[in-house]
Amino acid sequence: MNTFYWPDLLYSNVGFISGVGLLVSEAGEVLALSRRDDAADARIVELPGKALLPGFVNAHSHSFQRLIRGKAEGGGDFWSWRQTMYHAANRLEPEDVYDAARMAFLEMALAGTTTVGEFHYLHNAADGRPYDDPNLLAKQVIEAARSVGLRIVLLRTAYLRSGFELAPDAGQKRFFETGSAFLENTTALLRAYPETSGVSIGVAPHSVRAVPLRELKAIAEWNQSAGLPLHMHVSEQVAENEACLREHGHTPVELLKRERILSPKFTAVHAIHLSQEEIAALAEAGASICACPTTERNLGDGIFPADRAMTAGVRVALGSDSQAQIDPLEDARELEYHLRLAQQNRGVLDQIGGEPLAARLFGCATINGARLLSIASGELKPGNPADFFTVDLNDVAIAGHSAEDLLSMLVFSLPRSAVRDVAVSGRMIVRDGEHELTAEIVAQYTDIHRKVWGDSSHGKEAR
Amino acid sequence: MNTFYWPDLLYSNVGFISGVGLLVSEAGEVLALSRRDDAADARIVELPGKALLPGFVNAHSHSFQRLIRGKAEGGGDFWSWRQTMYHAANRLEPEDVYDAARMAFLEMALAGTTTVGEFHYLHNAADGRPYDDPNLLAKQVIEAARSVGLRIVLLRTAYLRSGFELAPDAGQKRFFETGSAFLENTTALLRAYPETSGVSIGVAPHSVRAVPLRELKAIAEWNQSAGLPLHMHVSEQVAENEACLREHGHTPVELLKRERILSPKFTAVHAIHLSQEEIAALAEAGASICACPTTERNLGDGIFPADRAMTAGVRVALGSDSQAQIDPLEDARELEYHLRLAQQNRGVLDQIGGEPLAARLFGCATINGARLLSIASGELKPGNPADFFTVDLNDVAIAGHSAEDLLSMLVFSLPRSAVRDVAVSGRMIVRDGEHELTAEIVAQYTDIHRKVWGDSSHGKEAR
Repeated sequence: MNTFYWPDLLYSNVGFISGVGLLVSEAGEVLALSRRDDAADARIVELPGKALLPGFVNAHSHSFQRLIRGKAEGGGDFWSWRQTMYHAANRLEPEDVYDAARMAFLEMALAGTTTVGEFHYLHNAADGRPYDDPNLLAKQVIEAARSVGLRIVLLRTAYLRSGFELAPDAGQKRFFETGSAFLENTTALLRAYPETSGVSIGVAPHSVRAVPLRELKAIAEWNQSAGLPLHMHVSEQVAENEACLREHGHTPVELLKRERILSPKFTAVHAIHLSQEEIAALAEAGASICACPTTERNLGDGIFPADRAMTAGVRVALGSDSQAQIDPLEDARELEYHLRLAQQNRGVLDQIGGEPLAARLFGCATINGARLLSIASGELKPGNPADFFTVDLNDVAIAGHSAEDLLSMLVFSLPRSAVRDVAVSGRMIVRDGEHELTAEIVAQYTDIHRKVWGDSSHGKEAR
Repeated sequence: MNTFYWPDLLYSNVGFISGVGLLVSEAGEVLALSRRDDAADARIVELPGKALLPGFVNAHSHSFQRLIRGKAEGGGDFWSWRQTMYHAANRLEPEDVYDAARMAFLEMALAGTTTVGEFHYLHNAADGRPYDDPNLLAKQVIEAARSVGLRIVLLRTAYLRSGFELAPDAGQKRFFETGSAFLENTTALLRAYPETSGVSIGVAPHSVRAVPLRELKAIAEWNQSAGLPLHMHVSEQVAENEACLREHGHTPVELLKRERILSPKFTAVHAIHLSQEEIAALAEAGASICACPTTERNLGDGIFPADRAMTAGVRVALGSDSQAQIDPLEDARELEYHLRLAQQNRGVLDQIGGEPLAARLFGCATINGARLLSIASGELKPGNPADFFTVDLNDVAIAGHSAEDLLSMLVFSLPRSAVRDVAVSGRMIVRDGEHELTAEIVAQYTDIHRKVWGDSSHGKEAR
């Protein structure tokens, strides 16, 4: 039986419309945006006082990094933060990886996210040896997403060395594979999740630092037939660019261009410290960028030049990355806000023309993410899965909206508490702000968190 | 009868402690932080699974600007944004001022705010003439805060001219008074709200642009006996500094120093474009700064130099200002985050020494605001009113915390949805995330919003 979701307002690619609901097949596919009269045979799900929008696509996540939230906010820099992150990474049993991922994915679901792109580089056991199934941890993360109900694209990450002329870092021993093992294990993972499984796989050479050029080329070549999304950290920190210059005589994007690794399947994650020529190279190749502003401000990476990237025609999507905050609209607004701060101006990304600003930013959080993960989502149109969330139109943050300014209010002012229902392929995973597994996930996560950090005390004195 | 609030964790000036609750008198005053055994005669309010913290102090608010949320996010600059703001300001009847203020104050209450400092410059009727009671609109705002249950400090604002060598701007006609009328009306407002009323008054010469030097000196002189907090917009935009240089041959802070207007009662709001000498002048005078980062990023004002201000010893508090977002912890974290973006470093404000970073930022959102509004709040200690909020310790954003990292998690990652209960002078105004007047306030606000903007349609088609 079909289902007809019947909100006050529905966001389609022409803006918010009323008098129209979402007709969804039993398999969870959008059949039509239709009037109620045209959905007479369907089960009606009334969503009064709510607007319905395509679900967010979180295109860059390291779920286990939820464990370091609040842990490294004092002194130190990016590189000392990374040591804290390794501390967490090295204390997780396979079931802990599952529980930590469920915690991050639950928070994403409650924020309106329906798809996560997990950039996954935890492969080995704590002693650095592969598990009997070298994809054991990847599968834990995939099962965590399934448990919460999120669509997942597992971006299996090649992390082959510590860096140019660097001895292997013991903190990274769970990440390392050989180049050939990487391709073998990725192939095995692809076989384990055929198209019908609803799970997608991508490849992610971690960075020019962590993947030598020879292996990087082999992965890119392998992917020419596989045709998977290929994601890579690029120019997050200036030091990375400098190391690449030392090793190759080129910046990372120059190198990627020269070696013909850029393509429409390529996504540069972060891409902060880029020259105009490098942005042009990405644009020319049809490559995309995934920015992660809430993480980038937390890590002190610098301001992503969204204006230059978008003006050049590069597609920009968003990721929660280190999970410092999980709030897709906060990420979206920061694309614009960080430029306002730097340029002391307003409407910076509005000057690019084309879409209105709010629609542009909302697109970064939805359809653009879907495109660079090669999935059909981020847009409510016939044939796509019914991945959506609803918002309470009477929420104190947006009360008084009209159809004309609602998207602008959402993008610039909505706290995630206004998200009420979330559905993935038509399956409601959040209803009226609640996910049914919350208590269980929080309880299990709390145990792991304490195990990792060894602080079981809840306060300075026992109660 | 006394009341004993009994949470799992309580935030005192030494961090989070357990085994201790808050003993509050019938009049709403903190009597002690005590063990449960020592509160045997009190009514016990159990707060299991919650942490209790001092309420936020929002030291700079223009409540009616809630009306322009989402309205001016496309093109334009600060000055065109201001025209949109005037459009709203000029369409409000006195009861609309009340309803708009209640909307903003409700959102503040739900975010854990217990005190608001309202920088109030809407004085006249829409035709520019004073009301029979020239404090009519100020009283509407005060009554709005009382209705919601917030403590309010009404910073009565002198807005005497459009600017140096500028003809009066019709958009500002509701703001204008003469210098003598300002002092007369402020005196009348002080009489209307004696100390026992629980309402405090401050004076706020709007800016060096809107108040000629002669009147500014008269207000400061008058305040030497009145002893009220004196707040003033200072150096939000570079153009203000330039106009002040043209008129006076000095930047605003240089002028204020030279004219001996800086004092421990003085708060510079924004204070973004300051030289090192100007920061030193504020520090030397014992003056404070109120930063408004979520507004400043929205308006493209620039990055507040919190590091330089704090290193010099200037007290920094926070305000929601234009209400682009109402989220005190987001404001607090941006003090640090905007510097991380600009400096490509981490723990920037941690390098100042003294307090740990999270405690420093939390202090900006609480005790510092109370100090520069001259009220006893922002800290849970005997003699202070019991102004506090609670947080759900199992919220998905902070699950796994320990006493050691909880404040850091709150400051850097808490969405306001985790705020559960809010009390002002021991009176619970929010219980488990709900304020009893929400439906009524939202409904009345929605009508005003539509009246102001003239768009009653809810969607592109009628349902």
